[in-house]
Amino acid sequence: MSDDKKLTTRADDFSAWYNEVVLRSELADYSPVKGSMVIRPNGYGIWERMQRALDDMFKASGHVNAYFPLFIPQSFIAKEAKHVEGFAPELAIVTHGGGKELEEPLVVRPTSETIIYHMYAKWVQSYRDLPILINQWANVVRWEMRTRLFLRTLEFLWQEGHTAHATHDEAEAEAITILGIYRKFAEEWMAMPVLTGLKSDNERFAGALRTYCIEAMMQDRKALQAGTSHNLGQNFSKAFDLKFQTETGTEEFAWNTSWGVSTRMVGGLVMTHGDDSGIVTPPRLAPIEVVIVPIWKTNDDRAGMVEAAMKLKAELTDWTGRGESDRLRVHVDARDGIRSGAKYYEWEMRGVPLRLELGAKDLEKQSVFSARRDTRVKAPIPRAGAPAAVADLLKTIQSDLFAAALARREAATIRGVTEYGQFKEIMAGDGGFVYAGWNGDPAVEARVKEETKATIRVIPDAEFR
Amino acid sequence: MSDDKKLTTRADDFSAWYNEVVLRSELADYSPVKGSMVIRPNGYGIWERMQRALDDMFKASGHVNAYFPLFIPQSFIAKEAKHVEGFAPELAIVTHGGGKELEEPLVVRPTSETIIYHMYAKWVQSYRDLPILINQWANVVRWEMRTRLFLRTLEFLWQEGHTAHATHDEAEAEAITILGIYRKFAEEWMAMPVLTGLKSDNERFAGALRTYCIEAMMQDRKALQAGTSHNLGQNFSKAFDLKFQTETGTEEFAWNTSWGVSTRMVGGLVMTHGDDSGIVTPPRLAPIEVVIVPIWKTNDDRAGMVEAAMKLKAELTDWTGRGESDRLRVHVDARDGIRSGAKYYEWEMRGVPLRLELGAKDLEKQSVFSARRDTRVKAPIPRAGAPAAVADLLKTIQSDLFAAALARREAATIRGVTEYGQFKEIMAGDGGFVYAGWNGDPAVEARVKEETKATIRVIPDAEFR
Repeated sequence: MSDDKKLTTRADDFSAWYNEVVLRSELADYSPVKGSMVIRPNGYGIWERMQRALDDMFKASGHVNAYFPLFIPQSFIAKEAKHVEGFAPELAIVTHGGGKELEEPLVVRPTSETIIYHMYAKWVQSYRDLPILINQWANVVRWEMRTRLFLRTLEFLWQEGHTAHATHDEAEAEAITILGIYRKFAEEWMAMPVLTGLKSDNERFAGALRTYCIEAMMQDRKALQAGTSHNLGQNFSKAFDLKFQTETGTEEFAWNTSWGVSTRMVGGLVMTHGDDSGIVTPPRLAPIEVVIVPIWKTNDDRAGMVEAAMKLKAELTDWTGRGESDRLRVHVDARDGIRSGAKYYEWEMRGVPLRLELGAKDLEKQSVFSARRDTRVKAPIPRAGAPAAVADLLKTIQSDLFAAALARREAATIRGVTEYGQFKEIMAGDGGFVYAGWNGDPAVEARVKEETKATIRVIPDAEFR
Repeated sequence: MSDDKKLTTRADDFSAWYNEVVLRSELADYSPVKGSMVIRPNGYGIWERMQRALDDMFKASGHVNAYFPLFIPQSFIAKEAKHVEGFAPELAIVTHGGGKELEEPLVVRPTSETIIYHMYAKWVQSYRDLPILINQWANVVRWEMRTRLFLRTLEFLWQEGHTAHATHDEAEAEAITILGIYRKFAEEWMAMPVLTGLKSDNERFAGALRTYCIEAMMQDRKALQAGTSHNLGQNFSKAFDLKFQTETGTEEFAWNTSWGVSTRMVGGLVMTHGDDSGIVTPPRLAPIEVVIVPIWKTNDDRAGMVEAAMKLKAELTDWTGRGESDRLRVHVDARDGIRSGAKYYEWEMRGVPLRLELGAKDLEKQSVFSARRDTRVKAPIPRAGAPAAVADLLKTIQSDLFAAALARREAATIRGVTEYGQFKEIMAGDGGFVYAGWNGDPAVEARVKEETKATIRVIPDAEFR
């Protein structure tokens, strides 16, 4: 927070703004290994809340967690033809261990389909052993050349679900269930509207039958793929001999799905809600929802005002109106020797959704002064009943953030484009989301991409159901 | 669970028993990469509860989580002389990435002191930036030759705390605080009594000033080091130039601590409480605390009995007597086509602390029949007020497990041994913990180890305070 230079604005250079805001809000930092990053406590706190929300939804839908090894025999990656084609160029390879050269080099997992379906093949004998609904929280490594903090890094954290089913339809239903969880999470937790649907063949996961995705629009009018859910068909079960005996005694290959979201979500959150003063965190994902800044004029006042702030904090955190396990997350900034203005600036940079100022006048008037991070609207809140009022305000901030992001996306979305000339004009201009027809020909997709840089982000649900 | 062969008994071959019980309770499995393991949902569920309990305690004592990269430049490891000496033989090395040979090979972290203190040096300018109290949950890799599931594996999961302080005394206090958290966790959650204290110089962490540890006795009378907390002094801050400006304007090196516990804890839990029927999970760490087995005689009875079991489950899980966020964790085993006896066998193997059987007679008598996993004591519980009775019973099981483990340890502990002859006799016999004097000479330590295989596990708190 020592850098007092003004942030680059989003309008001036969105990409520079993004890097600066991630560093200055102390979400992350560059590591000494090129392309990999350090997730600092401010960023990790958001990721932890993301994990908890998703994990609860996975568990509520019958999934369990497990952990599979980081290292995968190189030969495994080659077993599924499309898979090796997709991932071979991005692999990190361990050639030495314990001071010796290894007989078979090991791959640092770029994703875990191969090792997981190898294990499932060992565990599954009959239809009674299905479905397997396992998720893991892990780090993966993909050797990327052009990296961006959170968005594309050499190593990242994610969850990867891997399931095995007795029928194609069950696997398909699973892939769609997860897509629904991702949508719900993006919209209700991240306050980030998403389009859901199918990827074109060209953009689908290496080894999948069908890839579903959630796609969000960032403030630079560009799309961010924020999560994918794959129906893998029997591609991996055939490669790893994952067979089961059916109820009628025949032998069949299992049907698989895999699905994941990653720390890229933190980058998506920044690019969806951030402004020229810093990041803006949706309350449900904010490690600190409310920062209380006590204000004193003279040193003699300080102790009293800090005490009043601590009392307010205690009242807010004791309140169980949102449930015992969802207390308000409150911090008091009682640091001495730092002006209140500097504190405001710092907490705005860090995206704390609500600031409460507490000075002598507020005490007199039996109120506290609130300042919303998103709209900058300031208003007094009566001191009596503050917890419920604060919780309400946070709820409003959460829904207003979603509404604002949705309005931005819709303002940058053009529907019903049928002329290629118009399409090219849009792409040469401000860009955005365009709903246009496509004949399904990959050659057309490639030509449009070459001529306009536009890619098919998603074939919306309505179009293929 | 398909293997019906009897478990090897602990008395026959403790080590074989351990491996069998870990595999058959489906805590873990071998992976295709020699020395690394798969943590299956049953084992990971225990680890998740361990994580939650520890994480809550770390946060309550002011720590925050972050994430540092998996890969460390090879040159970093060499910067602290003792550290490289300790870890160099165990390193896994990445030499190729993205299809090219790397200019500087990367080490897969065996522990993260080097990269973390490098980052702290970047973040810390003045005493105002201290203390830093960061923890991370991560995987680490150590190239071990002789591996055992959970106890010693090529890759394992752990938490590693890394702190920076302005003074030696603050760092020392931190190391001791963490030791206290580890002790509390081991005793109150794992029901595993531990000795706490200092390691001898010979056994301390590579690069530490002092290493504190918790040591537990397993059922084979052998010690398990279950967690360590290191006062690193200024060794790493000097190697990584982690300096700060003091309040008086001078420049000083920071004082560091690091501390960790790992998935080895799961192995410790198995070896502390397991018996010849399987593992025994202390209720506080059990993903499933109670399994309800409905019993029916004819197919016509089935639906009614399953319904009664589901009703009991709902009553148990709706109960908030332990707090809203600590509901009873209950599973109903309504599988058809499997005898009740086979179900009991399976849940015993998996260590579920309490089984409730529900048959027609129990319904008549308005009771349920309970069977404790630890003592095998069986008794009816009145159906009315079942939730509180079950919670009480679980509490009793938790404390009885601790008492039993403590009694076993004390029965295998001999105090006040002053004659080397007696010491050798004990070690040649059943072994166990021996309290004996030591003159502090590493040569004596080495000779005793050579002649008796005994190691100095810990210099108890009382001896050096």
